[in-house]
Amino acid sequence: MSTTKALPLLEPEVAPCCPPLSERRLTAEEAERTAAMFKALGDPVRLRLFSAVASHEGGEACVCDISDVGVSQPTVSHHLKKLREAGLLTSERRGTWVYYRVAPSVLAAMATAFAPGS
Amino acid sequence: MSTTKALPLLEPEVAPCCPPLSERRLTAEEAERTAAMFKALGDPVRLRLFSAVASHEGGEACVCDISDVGVSQPTVSHHLKKLREAGLLTSERRGTWVYYRVAPSVLAAMATAFAPGS
Repeated sequence: MSTTKALPLLEPEVAPCCPPLSERRLTAEEAERTAAMFKALGDPVRLRLFSAVASHEGGEACVCDISDVGVSQPTVSHHLKKLREAGLLTSERRGTWVYYRVAPSVLAAMATAFAPGS
Repeated sequence: MSTTKALPLLEPEVAPCCPPLSERRLTAEEAERTAAMFKALGDPVRLRLFSAVASHEGGEACVCDISDVGVSQPTVSHHLKKLREAGLLTSERRGTWVYYRVAPSVLAAMATAFAPGS
């Protein structure tokens, strides 16, 4: 008999969220993780930056492409960092610039959260 | 001539949100409204309460059905009020109890926010 425990399956780089909110009650742990993503999107400037990255040609944007949201460059950087920490964006430095893209599966996972319950 | 002003069209109890985040950049105004809804869901207890209402039999729940989220009754009431103010829940008093349901179209509207861009 194997003594290995069944571990939760980890898909590569997939946002660990979001069970459909109307299917069953979230557990405390699910709520913690999912709420953190909503909280990151719960600021108008962060939401505009997220939308600017998500809608940018090729699915990625340089800070230089998206910093026209009416706040200072350090504030833009601060918000982008928060979005990255929440698992919503990934970033990659290429030469002078840092490029951001929406983390894989995030849009699908968040859409799932609002899918009708079964 | 009528002197009435054109008022914004109010669809019956429909959440005035959410353009697909990956279709185009949100305007400042769209971001304000949409971020307010995400912010309301950006707290683990509020998210659990929302999920408890959304997944409850018949699509509605009494406070008495959903108050087992590990916080005091006044805190539950406070969070339910926030969800209502954000346009995510509606409430109706019937007899002794207040019943909550997910505001019409909210789930669909939020799912739309995360739909792939065109």
